[in-house]
Amino acid sequence: MKPVCLVIGAGAGIGGTVGARFAREGYHAVLCRRSDKEGLDRLVAEIRADSGDASGMLLNAIDDNAIEDAVIRVEKEIGPVEVAIFNLGAQIGDRPLADTSHKAFEMGWRLATFGLFRLAKTLLPMMADRGSGSLLVTSATAAVRGNAGQHSHAAAMGGRRMLCQTLNAEFAPKGVHVAHILIDGAVDAPDTLGKMLGPERFQQLRETRGAEDGLLLPEKIAETYLHVAQQHRSVWTHELDLRSFSDVAWWNHV
Amino acid sequence: MKPVCLVIGAGAGIGGTVGARFAREGYHAVLCRRSDKEGLDRLVAEIRADSGDASGMLLNAIDDNAIEDAVIRVEKEIGPVEVAIFNLGAQIGDRPLADTSHKAFEMGWRLATFGLFRLAKTLLPMMADRGSGSLLVTSATAAVRGNAGQHSHAAAMGGRRMLCQTLNAEFAPKGVHVAHILIDGAVDAPDTLGKMLGPERFQQLRETRGAEDGLLLPEKIAETYLHVAQQHRSVWTHELDLRSFSDVAWWNHV
Amino acid sequence: MKPVCLVIGAGAGIGGTVGARFAREGYHAVLCRRSDKEGLDRLVAEIRADSGDASGMLLNAIDDNAIEDAVIRVEKEIGPVEVAIFNLGAQIGDRPLADTSHKAFEMGWRLATFGLFRLAKTLLPMMADRGSGSLLVTSATAAVRGNAGQHSHAAAMGGRRMLCQTLNAEFAPKGVHVAHILIDGAVDAPDTLGKMLGPERFQQLRETRGAEDGLLLPEKIAETYLHVAQQHRSVWTHELDLRSFSDVAWWNHV
Amino acid sequence: MKPVCLVIGAGAGIGGTVGARFAREGYHAVLCRRSDKEGLDRLVAEIRADSGDASGMLLNAIDDNAIEDAVIRVEKEIGPVEVAIFNLGAQIGDRPLADTSHKAFEMGWRLATFGLFRLAKTLLPMMADRGSGSLLVTSATAAVRGNAGQHSHAAAMGGRRMLCQTLNAEFAPKGVHVAHILIDGAVDAPDTLGKMLGPERFQQLRETRGAEDGLLLPEKIAETYLHVAQQHRSVWTHELDLRSFSDVAWWNHV
Repeated sequence: MKPVCLVIGAGAGIGGTVGARFAREGYHAVLCRRSDKEGLDRLVAEIRADSGDASGMLLNAIDDNAIEDAVIRVEKEIGPVEVAIFNLGAQIGDRPLADTSHKAFEMGWRLATFGLFRLAKTLLPMMADRGSGSLLVTSATAAVRGNAGQHSHAAAMGGRRMLCQTLNAEFAPKGVHVAHILIDGAVDAPDTLGKMLGPERFQQLRETRGAEDGLLLPEKIAETYLHVAQQHRSVWTHELDLRSFSDVAWWNHV
Repeated sequence: MKPVCLVIGAGAGIGGTVGARFAREGYHAVLCRRSDKEGLDRLVAEIRADSGDASGMLLNAIDDNAIEDAVIRVEKEIGPVEVAIFNLGAQIGDRPLADTSHKAFEMGWRLATFGLFRLAKTLLPMMADRGSGSLLVTSATAAVRGNAGQHSHAAAMGGRRMLCQTLNAEFAPKGVHVAHILIDGAVDAPDTLGKMLGPERFQQLRETRGAEDGLLLPEKIAETYLHVAQQHRSVWTHELDLRSFSDVAWWNHV
Repeated sequence: MKPVCLVIGAGAGIGGTVGARFAREGYHAVLCRRSDKEGLDRLVAEIRADSGDASGMLLNAIDDNAIEDAVIRVEKEIGPVEVAIFNLGAQIGDRPLADTSHKAFEMGWRLATFGLFRLAKTLLPMMADRGSGSLLVTSATAAVRGNAGQHSHAAAMGGRRMLCQTLNAEFAPKGVHVAHILIDGAVDAPDTLGKMLGPERFQQLRETRGAEDGLLLPEKIAETYLHVAQQHRSVWTHELDLRSFSDVAWWNHV
Repeated sequence: MKPVCLVIGAGAGIGGTVGARFAREGYHAVLCRRSDKEGLDRLVAEIRADSGDASGMLLNAIDDNAIEDAVIRVEKEIGPVEVAIFNLGAQIGDRPLADTSHKAFEMGWRLATFGLFRLAKTLLPMMADRGSGSLLVTSATAAVRGNAGQHSHAAAMGGRRMLCQTLNAEFAPKGVHVAHILIDGAVDAPDTLGKMLGPERFQQLRETRGAEDGLLLPEKIAETYLHVAQQHRSVWTHELDLRSFSDVAWWNHV
């Protein structure tokens, strides 16, 4: 039986691509996303066409028990989750405080912070019982600094980073590796950046900045996810950053 | 009319003491807390006995509109809030993930992160209209590192710190000062530490460590709150830490 | 006998102004700088005209024993140093690596890092013997992030910040307070920024950005130095930042 | 002609092991260290016995031109340096300030900070001309927090981290990848930890903590160095940490 790589938040960007990379490495990739069954089926079909194993699941992560049930079902029907990728977030673009509703603020937390808590609470005890497992958390610059207009996103990601640390502190000694992977830049991802920009501006960005490797490429990101998941337990990385060579690090200014 | 210092979370520790200090400086201190009307009345009476102005308000910060209504009522009935102290938090002690319920995790966020968002959303636009005002946020070490067992508290405080940054980024240019004050150590506070430890252990700690200034004294903390609120707008502090001279900084180990 | 406030690096910006503020508070201000005896005499005369006590000393901090001898002489001839302000640095503007000579890189360290080490090594044991004293270190954004062209300055200031932490870790329990004060922005200082920009551009900056409190005002900075030096030992600040309300925090971008 | 991996500081721990790993990957490993020609020859022989290419060089990094000449000679006689590992440091154990001589403090900087500057100043322009290259810098917890007794080491490593950032800011856009790799824990390294502890205590530590993967294993560390050197330029890591699963992260306490 293949080990399972469970991806929560599997669009055609980081999530789906990381899943496909793990599938190529011999994992059964379980791809979960909220909507677009067609897109999900396509990702699964591509993995299978590449001789990999994959399953797809539509789930709305904020529904009660949605994450919990998915984990339990996967563990029961497919196999033990050896690697989980938590890839949800609610980057809603820059909005002044006046335009950030209570609901938008709460939604940021519910997806990005509480969602991770729920996944961890369900999955990490199982991993701890097995004495192994990795939880790779896709993070963003907003986890380490709060820019204007990022009230919801930054509060959610800042909380998430601290949660990754408390999870590590409790579970690393039990053999479970939690890694906080800070994506510091624009990702060449049609389902997130593409939707934020619209097809034309996204295509244009790809042809200019992307053509010179100025956008983070999901298939290259996936190599680092795989590496981190495979680190020997004597040398675990808890926090790392990723950015394009031509981009300015978040701590610098132009 | 005196300027108002509004304290959200005014127990007999930092909140109440800071309120009293501002009252001595000529502010009308409005002390808000969830329960213990008797204790609240005592704080108000002490301020008045010291020739200061103060009012008390019981409110449950997590109730819909509780924070919002309090701000509006104070602005209308007492006067413009020039300084707000946000002092809520839900430190529930160390608990393994298994013992951290969904509800406890959410409550941490609701009080410490969402509460600040709601206060800011109501109050900061008014301050911005007036071109001045200070929001001093009491924070904790959990805002910058996640220790084992601190899942709820660290996630809430980490989010809160990022929120302070996004608020600053938007409102500082409008004349509103948001300061994140990291309390890195045990405070000589009967209503929080005292309740966590119980009366006997708390008294013992006061007589040993406290006797040598090893506990942060609320009346000394209040001096720094007052200083930060009075900083000239050309030299605002956004983040600072406070700890006892004899304590180990969070980034060090023994 | 008045307590002494020793300022290492006392130009007409932060150093001299902080010295004057402490003199007004009842300290004997000892102002040390490398050159411009006339300017130094003027600062001393101004303090005396304001009924304060002050002395001036020319010293080249990188000379062997210059800092050490100054401390010893002051302690012997004027009185115990209760507060020391370390205000040296070698901000030489942005220079690509190719234009940063071995000498320039070393000079940055020699002034900003080694100079502090030497001051601390001479003075802190005396303060520790007396069980009290403050060492306030003026720092810069370069202590926490390295921008392009800041090779010498950032390496020096980054080392200095860590040194402040090791000094605190050893000396705070002995009653000596070391504070790292991060100045995150342009200071209205003729002897540093003024010289970097030249008189015309500096005057122009003062009349535009400065007129709206967009430059940090040394006399306002001095208030925070004084506050930190007077914090009760149960509530010491080790790190804080200062910036103009209208400036962008280093961790944000425009 | 094989690409060259130049290791500055190649003992039988991280340096030598990383060099061997790159040799196995097809690089010519050039191992440089200060002393112990016999040990150096053994490392080189081992690599060759494993069908790899390697050369050894004794050099005292603090000598004028030692690092510079080595780079130039290697580039001329062996080939273009594609990857450089900077592995020097002067961890001298905990020493109170009184026991930290001017010389010891300067030596820390000279090896750990200035050495990196000199390597970068010589090598990075060549890499920039070629449009590619990696400089991997072994770092330590002292780069991000200053513990008691670590005056020399922390000041040196703190400066080094900022230097890595300024180097990145200038050279990343030119295709040169500088990575700061924070080793947060005890390494199973006979030439550094082994010498600090003495053979008996080191052997004992290996048999207890090491037997349970509680020491960072150099050959596992080497996998991450290799991964970072091979990251695609659209996804470079600038900072990451490594620690054993059973160890406490530096930001946590027990």
